[in-house]
Amino acid sequence: MPALIVPLSELADGQEADFFAVLSEKQDLTTRDGKPYFRVSFRDAKREVGLPIWSDSPLAAPCRNEWTVGEFYKLRGSIEQSKFGPQLEIRKIRPVEPSDRDEGFDPAMCLAASRFDPEQMFAELLAIAEERIGDKPLRQLVVDILEAHHEPLLALPAATRNHHAFVGGYLEHVLNVTRTCAYLAEKYAELYPDLEPPLDKDVVVAAGVLHDIGKLRELSVGATGAEYTASGSLIGHVLQGRDIVREMAAGQSIDPEKLLRLEHAIIAHQRLPEWGAPKPPMTPEALIVHYADDLDAKLQMMVTAIADDTSDGPVTSKRNALYQHVYRGGV
Amino acid sequence: MPALIVPLSELADGQEADFFAVLSEKQDLTTRDGKPYFRVSFRDAKREVGLPIWSDSPLAAPCRNEWTVGEFYKLRGSIEQSKFGPQLEIRKIRPVEPSDRDEGFDPAMCLAASRFDPEQMFAELLAIAEERIGDKPLRQLVVDILEAHHEPLLALPAATRNHHAFVGGYLEHVLNVTRTCAYLAEKYAELYPDLEPPLDKDVVVAAGVLHDIGKLRELSVGATGAEYTASGSLIGHVLQGRDIVREMAAGQSIDPEKLLRLEHAIIAHQRLPEWGAPKPPMTPEALIVHYADDLDAKLQMMVTAIADDTSDGPVTSKRNALYQHVYRGGV
Amino acid sequence: MPALIVPLSELADGQEADFFAVLSEKQDLTTRDGKPYFRVSFRDAKREVGLPIWSDSPLAAPCRNEWTVGEFYKLRGSIEQSKFGPQLEIRKIRPVEPSDRDEGFDPAMCLAASRFDPEQMFAELLAIAEERIGDKPLRQLVVDILEAHHEPLLALPAATRNHHAFVGGYLEHVLNVTRTCAYLAEKYAELYPDLEPPLDKDVVVAAGVLHDIGKLRELSVGATGAEYTASGSLIGHVLQGRDIVREMAAGQSIDPEKLLRLEHAIIAHQRLPEWGAPKPPMTPEALIVHYADDLDAKLQMMVTAIADDTSDGPVTSKRNALYQHVYRGGV
Amino acid sequence: MPALIVPLSELADGQEADFFAVLSEKQDLTTRDGKPYFRVSFRDAKREVGLPIWSDSPLAAPCRNEWTVGEFYKLRGSIEQSKFGPQLEIRKIRPVEPSDRDEGFDPAMCLAASRFDPEQMFAELLAIAEERIGDKPLRQLVVDILEAHHEPLLALPAATRNHHAFVGGYLEHVLNVTRTCAYLAEKYAELYPDLEPPLDKDVVVAAGVLHDIGKLRELSVGATGAEYTASGSLIGHVLQGRDIVREMAAGQSIDPEKLLRLEHAIIAHQRLPEWGAPKPPMTPEALIVHYADDLDAKLQMMVTAIADDTSDGPVTSKRNALYQHVYRGGV
Amino acid sequence: MPALIVPLSELADGQEADFFAVLSEKQDLTTRDGKPYFRVSFRDAKREVGLPIWSDSPLAAPCRNEWTVGEFYKLRGSIEQSKFGPQLEIRKIRPVEPSDRDEGFDPAMCLAASRFDPEQMFAELLAIAEERIGDKPLRQLVVDILEAHHEPLLALPAATRNHHAFVGGYLEHVLNVTRTCAYLAEKYAELYPDLEPPLDKDVVVAAGVLHDIGKLRELSVGATGAEYTASGSLIGHVLQGRDIVREMAAGQSIDPEKLLRLEHAIIAHQRLPEWGAPKPPMTPEALIVHYADDLDAKLQMMVTAIADDTSDGPVTSKRNALYQHVYRGGV
Amino acid sequence: MPALIVPLSELADGQEADFFAVLSEKQDLTTRDGKPYFRVSFRDAKREVGLPIWSDSPLAAPCRNEWTVGEFYKLRGSIEQSKFGPQLEIRKIRPVEPSDRDEGFDPAMCLAASRFDPEQMFAELLAIAEERIGDKPLRQLVVDILEAHHEPLLALPAATRNHHAFVGGYLEHVLNVTRTCAYLAEKYAELYPDLEPPLDKDVVVAAGVLHDIGKLRELSVGATGAEYTASGSLIGHVLQGRDIVREMAAGQSIDPEKLLRLEHAIIAHQRLPEWGAPKPPMTPEALIVHYADDLDAKLQMMVTAIADDTSDGPVTSKRNALYQHVYRGGV
Repeated sequence: MPALIVPLSELADGQEADFFAVLSEKQDLTTRDGKPYFRVSFRDAKREVGLPIWSDSPLAAPCRNEWTVGEFYKLRGSIEQSKFGPQLEIRKIRPVEPSDRDEGFDPAMCLAASRFDPEQMFAELLAIAEERIGDKPLRQLVVDILEAHHEPLLALPAATRNHHAFVGGYLEHVLNVTRTCAYLAEKYAELYPDLEPPLDKDVVVAAGVLHDIGKLRELSVGATGAEYTASGSLIGHVLQGRDIVREMAAGQSIDPEKLLRLEHAIIAHQRLPEWGAPKPPMTPEALIVHYADDLDAKLQMMVTAIADDTSDGPVTSKRNALYQHVYRGGV
Repeated sequence: MPALIVPLSELADGQEADFFAVLSEKQDLTTRDGKPYFRVSFRDAKREVGLPIWSDSPLAAPCRNEWTVGEFYKLRGSIEQSKFGPQLEIRKIRPVEPSDRDEGFDPAMCLAASRFDPEQMFAELLAIAEERIGDKPLRQLVVDILEAHHEPLLALPAATRNHHAFVGGYLEHVLNVTRTCAYLAEKYAELYPDLEPPLDKDVVVAAGVLHDIGKLRELSVGATGAEYTASGSLIGHVLQGRDIVREMAAGQSIDPEKLLRLEHAIIAHQRLPEWGAPKPPMTPEALIVHYADDLDAKLQMMVTAIADDTSDGPVTSKRNALYQHVYRGGV
Repeated sequence: MPALIVPLSELADGQEADFFAVLSEKQDLTTRDGKPYFRVSFRDAKREVGLPIWSDSPLAAPCRNEWTVGEFYKLRGSIEQSKFGPQLEIRKIRPVEPSDRDEGFDPAMCLAASRFDPEQMFAELLAIAEERIGDKPLRQLVVDILEAHHEPLLALPAATRNHHAFVGGYLEHVLNVTRTCAYLAEKYAELYPDLEPPLDKDVVVAAGVLHDIGKLRELSVGATGAEYTASGSLIGHVLQGRDIVREMAAGQSIDPEKLLRLEHAIIAHQRLPEWGAPKPPMTPEALIVHYADDLDAKLQMMVTAIADDTSDGPVTSKRNALYQHVYRGGV
Repeated sequence: MPALIVPLSELADGQEADFFAVLSEKQDLTTRDGKPYFRVSFRDAKREVGLPIWSDSPLAAPCRNEWTVGEFYKLRGSIEQSKFGPQLEIRKIRPVEPSDRDEGFDPAMCLAASRFDPEQMFAELLAIAEERIGDKPLRQLVVDILEAHHEPLLALPAATRNHHAFVGGYLEHVLNVTRTCAYLAEKYAELYPDLEPPLDKDVVVAAGVLHDIGKLRELSVGATGAEYTASGSLIGHVLQGRDIVREMAAGQSIDPEKLLRLEHAIIAHQRLPEWGAPKPPMTPEALIVHYADDLDAKLQMMVTAIADDTSDGPVTSKRNALYQHVYRGGV
Repeated sequence: MPALIVPLSELADGQEADFFAVLSEKQDLTTRDGKPYFRVSFRDAKREVGLPIWSDSPLAAPCRNEWTVGEFYKLRGSIEQSKFGPQLEIRKIRPVEPSDRDEGFDPAMCLAASRFDPEQMFAELLAIAEERIGDKPLRQLVVDILEAHHEPLLALPAATRNHHAFVGGYLEHVLNVTRTCAYLAEKYAELYPDLEPPLDKDVVVAAGVLHDIGKLRELSVGATGAEYTASGSLIGHVLQGRDIVREMAAGQSIDPEKLLRLEHAIIAHQRLPEWGAPKPPMTPEALIVHYADDLDAKLQMMVTAIADDTSDGPVTSKRNALYQHVYRGGV
Repeated sequence: MPALIVPLSELADGQEADFFAVLSEKQDLTTRDGKPYFRVSFRDAKREVGLPIWSDSPLAAPCRNEWTVGEFYKLRGSIEQSKFGPQLEIRKIRPVEPSDRDEGFDPAMCLAASRFDPEQMFAELLAIAEERIGDKPLRQLVVDILEAHHEPLLALPAATRNHHAFVGGYLEHVLNVTRTCAYLAEKYAELYPDLEPPLDKDVVVAAGVLHDIGKLRELSVGATGAEYTASGSLIGHVLQGRDIVREMAAGQSIDPEKLLRLEHAIIAHQRLPEWGAPKPPMTPEALIVHYADDLDAKLQMMVTAIADDTSDGPVTSKRNALYQHVYRGGV
């Protein structure tokens, strides 16, 4: 009788079962006291679990010579709590075979994905745009752009590495940013009633939604993740996002002042030239978008750094997207 | 019959009246086409109005040789709309005399001040601390610090220059920052329920309230504005704010982990060493505080740059606290 | 009998005559040993001559109070050689009057202009494009863009300050750059015959012609010189030049690889992010364009710094477009 | 009959003996011409000797799989001179066993330590403080701080890496710095007799002694070396050193001007913000302390770089604490 | 009957033969999906061909343990086209033996070398100097320096790494730079006829020839490539090149102004202090030399990066002399 | 009867007398509250005294229009203590006349000069070189260089601005640096007895004496101060100092290792490329020289900043050679 097949993400602690997973990490490392080992991780869409493979393990040879990052495996094992957090114990492992489809294997079940439902995030983003952008032509432009790219946006990550680098990551990040934009636009419009011309809340929200839209052209999403396209490498999403806006706005009667502020907020959203902004934020709208965006990205990097780090001591190593130590807590 | 005495801030356009004001600005300038003039401004607590004094004006000589920034004057004149915005027209001007007290003159009526009532801002800040900091000892610490410095906080500016450099500016800035901190703490605590240890919302709010508390020691507020103290120059508010927290926390039973995160968020709130932070934000709490603080300061600088600039063209000059062009709008 | 009217640029040394000129410079300076004076310059399209006006000169009062940079004057005087180079001696001066038109005054005769004929430079640029771009659709694109903007290109300066900041300066700079591009493309294509794909000489020449084409949108040329437009300030010529190429290329059958390399060379031509390039040169074509452009701009700045400097000693002051000392020669 | 047991640091060249040592280094390297080997070093408190282990050595397998940095071994072998300097030849090796204590093994005998006696260095530091600080309350403060931390100061290294990273390293570094401070304070006080207020020699010496005192809180010293504490990571020794001074000075009648200059010299001793100083040296006293400190640290790094480097050629590699080539001499 | 011996650079695709080659590269790598392999390359003077050696190949053990970069081998094999370009297939391999000399082996036949004949490049450089330097003493100085170092210049590389790092690389680079210098000097002398003093074309050409002449002292060329000398490390070719010029010019009647401009152009040719220039270009001559030099070096790095890169995707990795992605083409 | 003629530097407080002085400073300033005034200073070799000249003073017109920095005046007046320190009160003032020579006027009596006697400093420097450089050829080289430039060294300043910018300033600075070098060389040679090769104390002292010797060629000293020469501007004292050493060492039998270390210490003494060092200190000797030099220069800047500043508050303005606030003391 075949063992029970349970999704990795649903394994209870200590429960032994069969599951399908992708090898998501394989690093040839040495402990601080000089012992060689491999750090490997397996994941499905919702959960990633790692383990060390020491050089005297029977898995050491196949790990070194055969296991391949990005390939799919059928494993039998369990997840055990250790002082380093949950660790996988492997009883059996073999590459996925065609017949495994019959038992429910599907490659898409193993790709890292947002914890949130993409369709729901898309719908919510659309709803914010419709509710919070008062100017009709601008609102229509934003809605048109979202709807014209509905399908690819569902799967798009926010980046190939660094932050929100998973299926649906684009929507998760953009939704966070847009919500903060809406909050801050409201707050500061109220705080500075005498600003002339007044803070354009519509532009803040529109730019929140569209600041990263150029990722659609910068990245190409395939079976194993996202890659940079040729034009993404040579031009970049900051400019390509503005291209999409200009192309969709052509022939529409968008107020030119609003359109210019929107284009500017997109190209300025990374703030400093060495961070990728051809111009710094020169409008209040662009300034707000930058801060909402940057905080969300940096915070996600920090949360990931804390979750992924396996070193000792009160702080993580510097090997993370922030290139700095992060405090892990527990004085 | 004496002319009507009307506060400068209540003068209707075109209404001629007497009023008291301080000379807040006097610059010896040259137009782009080479003509020399003085740019002068007069203000009371709520309004500042400027005018150019050309070299052929009868006011040119007294302006150059006698008028003194920071001194108080009794003026007769009116405010007229021009293509450069409202401008003062001066009919008469003389320094304030002792007897002017009888007509209601008081130096405090002329200092630049927040548009908001300091007592009300203080009360609101206290209320946020009491409602949003769940941990009792931490909450008490924040409340104690605020109440122990009630009086000086009412008048404190946020800086001697740059941003919120006016009476009550400290409270206005800190209140804005704390509100944003409360919003973001709530949002991100909800977004990352699995973060371990969890995002400490109490610390975010407490650090929002206290991040600039060292200004109490860095600045000395006198009749004509704020100056750096000796210890402010040699040590600085970033460290002195942490000193206040440590002194007030001594002997209290604050959770050491919370206290450490609070101290860290204070010293890291300017993020980069060259911006004044001995350590970069290494906790999610400190990261959020930095962004809430930095946005509020930069946005106030930008709003002020737009309001104060008198140059031509679509953007302001670079002579503002941001050292960059800011867009003034109206394509 | 009226004095002879001779263009400033045709005055022989020591010849006294009447002429029309614009006041191009008026600076309130102090000598190194503390004496105040004005440095003023007058110019017509081809020549600029300056003089100091000391505080005891009868011209000192009108200079300080009345003379206006950008206004036109009728002068009587002569150019005398001094140890500081040619200097103007003014016998009479008054603002231009309407009736001066009858004697041949025309404001356009006073604007700083390239030493070369704009139409001839335009024709030469067109000829290079037609001869040196082998690929027909790309060649047609370049020719179309030039011809569509024939008129404004004739007057456009290369910048508002810094380098080639005069009528026709755009064409002078672009022609220099394009010639160098053609030379270097030829040379390096021959040197690296095995490069795969081969160096695209067409793209180098096309990008030489078009690298600054966005100046058409960044700058607005008026009677008294060029100013930044709103979109120029918020977006910038680097992106706007690529916009023009994309708009003109839309619907044409340009080879996408060539078009991408051309777009990239335009946005990368300033090389470093802090110099305004969203991407660094990532193709050999873009690298060559950057060097041809940068050398021409910097050399013109250096030549101007040497010509304009009036300080003593072996090197110029640092007050020039390069912000550095330049050697004036004559050990 | 058991072999003679001789401390590693007392082995004569070529003498074969048994000794105890800790494995202090184990690196998996490749020669410039591509051969793999391990670089390992063994040390006791006074001497460290290394050797390469080639892949065809019988020690290669245990080295790769078993030897552990930080563990203790009993070895039999000798030290032989080679063209690369002294090298260890290993005849036998096994981990230390409990019974080795009977033969004199003690882990403390293997930790890297200063060549100087800690108690003697402590006494000398105290003597300098007592002789060279004229102001009684300040002198007492310095003496009190030293005596209150007598025990931990004996073992404290100056850093976890980089410079003086060994037992007693703190005292060795601080003693060097304080001596230089005393010399320079004397010299410059004499050179600038008119400085007003005069150079405070007491503060220079006190700050020399206390500039790094925060290491007591930044580092936690354990059996195998020093680690950063949580507060050390989040606050840092620069601020924590000032904390110690403030806590010990509280309630004492220290002249506030002297105390402020001392606090400032501590926080400014690393000079630039990116090197860790919240404020740059703004007093002559702080400036002197910075130079005395920085030279001693950098010189120790350079001496160590020369001693440790094993590459060929006239200069060391860049893999040292200075990240630069250092000249090894012998043109 | 012995197999045919054919130079590696003359092997036809698919032709099996014996040849001599040096092992020029051996890297211990891991594929992106985690499989270990060695990347090795063999070269003679004109051609380099690589191959991967997987861990299950019979060559894996000798590769890891015996093959040595810089040593010479006799191989039997063929070159086969693959999707990664030409790859070597090895049938037999053994280190070169003394008797191989009889079959024509000579170590010099394996060193990487310029594609151009050194003697011919030397002759051409000399010819340019003689034709394009009008001033007799300066021309004689340049010719003397070239002829005095005829032999070492033939073999000198332009650098130990980075660009033109092969036998004859110095001449190839210097010849390219000098040609561009001659072109640009001619062009800009014509463009700025009024520059005072005029652009010194002689100096531009002389500095093109001599800008890197200090490499003769900075580098020491041995059998296996170039190394830094002690004086090269401590002083550097920028200063040492000027030394050579000064030593050769001593006692000659060179115009001091020309000599000073030449010395300056040599020390300023790397433009920025952090790129190695003690002074920035302060003369038009030095500015031109910098651009001609920098473009040639950077372009060679880019061409090499494209040729050497073996990664996937539209751009190369950043592991090249430019530390940046380079576009490989083929959208 | 003529008034008593007393040197300015010997005037007692409140004593009225005649004296000769040079106008050393004349700045057109505005007080913080907007009043215009001139800040002027007069000096003889040993003392400089300033005063403000308000716009209503009878001296205002001649000050503005006639007084010239660098010219000599005969004054009658007194020095009075004020809250801003000693101030000059002027009763009479006229330019020096030829006949004033008869009363003892000599321009040299007015140049700013070291407080120390140049001949005595020169003698002391020579003595240190002779006593502290053990190696005979190196010692002779240093002595020869000093003696060959005896005359010009007496008057040379250390710089045209920034630090020790007065007659004899070179010797004062170099003597300070050399003394510190001798102290540190002794100290660290003793501390690191095992350094191999040992710290070369001779080189440290020789480089202390010679590190700035290139100032002899970089600067040209005239009646009114020092100016940069053409070669000083284009090559700089760092390289020119090494030139002097190489020229004097040619044909002498200096140990090449010592000579190379000396040359290196000279070119590396400013440490970072952006501070003017073509190479960083790569030897212990060069490192020591850098610190001894840099401290002396920065400390003299700080002392001067404190002495010269006339602003209010606890710290000086940033307008000094350090571009930073300096603490003035008196909490």
